[in-house]
Amino acid sequence: MEEVLYDNYYMEARREALLALSKDEVPVGCVVVKDGEIIGRGHNMTETAADPSAHAEVIAIREAAKALGTWRLTGATLYVTLEPCLMCASLIKKSRIGKVVIGAIEPEEGAFGSVASISLLPPRGRQIEVVWLKDEFSGDLMTSYFKKLRSRR
Amino acid sequence: MEEVLYDNYYMEARREALLALSKDEVPVGCVVVKDGEIIGRGHNMTETAADPSAHAEVIAIREAAKALGTWRLTGATLYVTLEPCLMCASLIKKSRIGKVVIGAIEPEEGAFGSVASISLLPPRGRQIEVVWLKDEFSGDLMTSYFKKLRSRR
Repeated sequence: MEEVLYDNYYMEARREALLALSKDEVPVGCVVVKDGEIIGRGHNMTETAADPSAHAEVIAIREAAKALGTWRLTGATLYVTLEPCLMCASLIKKSRIGKVVIGAIEPEEGAFGSVASISLLPPRGRQIEVVWLKDEFSGDLMTSYFKKLRSRR
Repeated sequence: MEEVLYDNYYMEARREALLALSKDEVPVGCVVVKDGEIIGRGHNMTETAADPSAHAEVIAIREAAKALGTWRLTGATLYVTLEPCLMCASLIKKSRIGKVVIGAIEPEEGAFGSVASISLLPPRGRQIEVVWLKDEFSGDLMTSYFKKLRSRR
């Protein structure tokens, strides 16, 4: 097995994912870091907040922008436990985030290679550095969440 | 010239676009209607709110979901003065909105045919009825906004 090192920021994103799970939400967590500081954090809240836009990344990015007083998050890094969907990927690109660290792949909706390519999303000129952690824990968290959901139906 | 009829809901979306313009924001406006009632409205607020997600559609959808107490806006219609971007189109599809009425085309970022096709966005099974108004006023509003912006630089 390949050895992977998770830094403290990613572990905080994982912590957010567990918070989502504890609320019966899709277990995805995210933090936004700038100059070594976590300036935004979030976990999926679509059900609890009755808000279809309340994905972990949207919440973390909104908080980060509020903290900086601007929507431009240039120089920031986003850590997220699951490959972001098109909505979130599009927002990440709009917000000028420079680097994205992703835990697990999301084959159905992921826009960092699975169903779309982040480099092709507007604005096209802007490139984002992407790091894949292949975090099995975050992937397993999703699998068990949806298994539990199906068993309830 | 082809005669087009704008209903009151679309005129409210236009009113929202003018509100955005009055705040020096990108002039896009949106309302969400269900059972004949406007349950959400919004205009672009990215600069004023320091929030990269604060597009007219996101604000209107969040408000509508709050009003209904659920993220599922099944049976709702969204009226917007400009072709939604990928972020907003993805949110529209997630939120189960059934119909979208669009004013003007957005050739650089529009996800209802310009740079992406709404029918291909996940969830793919779900189809959305789309009505194009070809509203020259809303298109002109955008053109003059960006012209003014460029002249300031």
